[in-house]
Amino acid sequence: MRVKKNPEIRSGELLDCAQRLFFTHGYDNTTINDIIREAGVSKGAFYHYFPSKEALLEAFAARLARKSLEEIRPLLDDPTLDAVGRLNTLFAGSRRLKVELAPQLRTVFDVIFRPENIVLFHRIDQAVTRIVVPLLADVLQEGTEEGLFDAPDPEAFAEMLLLFRLSLGSVMHEALLKSREGNIEQAAKMLDDRLRLYGIAIDRVLKLPEGTIEVAETGFVRALLDDSQ
Amino acid sequence: MRVKKNPEIRSGELLDCAQRLFFTHGYDNTTINDIIREAGVSKGAFYHYFPSKEALLEAFAARLARKSLEEIRPLLDDPTLDAVGRLNTLFAGSRRLKVELAPQLRTVFDVIFRPENIVLFHRIDQAVTRIVVPLLADVLQEGTEEGLFDAPDPEAFAEMLLLFRLSLGSVMHEALLKSREGNIEQAAKMLDDRLRLYGIAIDRVLKLPEGTIEVAETGFVRALLDDSQ
Repeated sequence: MRVKKNPEIRSGELLDCAQRLFFTHGYDNTTINDIIREAGVSKGAFYHYFPSKEALLEAFAARLARKSLEEIRPLLDDPTLDAVGRLNTLFAGSRRLKVELAPQLRTVFDVIFRPENIVLFHRIDQAVTRIVVPLLADVLQEGTEEGLFDAPDPEAFAEMLLLFRLSLGSVMHEALLKSREGNIEQAAKMLDDRLRLYGIAIDRVLKLPEGTIEVAETGFVRALLDDSQ
Repeated sequence: MRVKKNPEIRSGELLDCAQRLFFTHGYDNTTINDIIREAGVSKGAFYHYFPSKEALLEAFAARLARKSLEEIRPLLDDPTLDAVGRLNTLFAGSRRLKVELAPQLRTVFDVIFRPENIVLFHRIDQAVTRIVVPLLADVLQEGTEEGLFDAPDPEAFAEMLLLFRLSLGSVMHEALLKSREGNIEQAAKMLDDRLRLYGIAIDRVLKLPEGTIEVAETGFVRALLDDSQ
C-alpha cells in the first residue's frame, strides 16, 4: 500500500526539490519534467499541486517571503527599539544573523542574480516586497509621528526605499564573479561602497543624518565573498 | 520574382508587427506563429532575423530604447540648461511633449503595466536603463562639480534614482483602471500625488530644495487619464 502523505508536506517536498534544481541548473533551465523525475512523483501528483511552472514559481516565492517574515517579525517586536532601530532591523535583517548566514546567502545570491534567473528573481522580489511594504510603512509612520525622520506618505516612501535594493543585483553578481576570479579585495570594496551609498540614499530620503542606516554589518561583505573563511 | 527587401526594413516590419500584437493581446499571449501569420512571412524568414521570442524581445526593447535616446539627446544638448534643468529634462522628458503625447502614452502604459506583460516591461526597462544611466550619471557629475547638488558616486546614484520609476507601475495601472471606471478625479489625485513624491524623493537624495525636480507637467495626468479630452 502506498503511504499517503499530508498534502502540505508533499507540496513542501516538491518545492524543496524545485529549489535544489533551480539553484543548481537555473530557473530557465529547469523543466517540470526535471522536477517530477527528481522528486519521484507522478505527473498527475505534480499537477495536482501545481497546475503550471508559473504556479510552482508563485508558491515558491510565497514560501520564501513567508520564511523571511517569520525571521523578521520577532526582531521588529523588540520593545527596546525606536523607529530608527526598527528601520535598521528591516534593512539589514538581524545583522548578526547576516554574517553567520553569509555562506548560505552566497549560494542564494549566486543563483538569483544570474541573468538567466531574472524571472525567478523578480517573482521572489515581488512576494517579499508585498510582505515588507506594510511593515516598513508602519515603521515610517511611527518614526514620522515621533519626529525622528520625515516620510510624508509612509506607503509610497516604503515602496520607493525598497526599490533601492534592486540596484544591488548587478553589483552583487559582478562582485561574486570578481571574487571567484581571486579579486576579493576589489570585489569587497565595490560591494561595500555600494552598500554604504544605499544606506546614505535611505538617510537622505528620510532626512536622517548620513550614516544612520546601515544595510550591512562590517565584515559581512568579506564573509559573503571570501569562501575560504 | 519576389522583391528582396533590405534586411533592416524587413526586421523593422517584423518588430512593428510584434508590437501591434503585444499591445493588443499581451506579450505572454502572443506566439511566434501569431507574428509569422500576421506579418505574412515564412517561418524560415522569421527565424533568420530572430532565432527565438527572447531574441525578438531583446531587439524590440533595444529599438524602443534607441528611439527614446534619439528624442532625449537633442533636449539634453540645449546650452541654456544647467545641470538641474538637464535633470528635469531627463526625468520628465520634454514636458511639452508629454502632454501632447498623452493619448499615445496611455496606450503604451495600458499595455506595459499589465501584470501579464511583466517580462516585456522588465526587458524594455532594462534596455532603457542601460542607455539612460550614463546620461544621468554625466548630469549628476556635472551638477555635483558645480555645487548645484550632491551625488558622491554619480553612476550608483543614477541607478538608484532611476529605480524610483518602478514604483510608478502599479500606481499607473491602478489609476488607468479607476479612470476607466469613471473615477477620474480619484485616479488623477492618486497619480499626481505619487508623481510629486517621486520628485521629492529625487530632490532629497540629491540634497536639492523640495519641489525642484518635477517629473510631470501640470495637466499631464489628466490628459493621460481622461480620454474624452
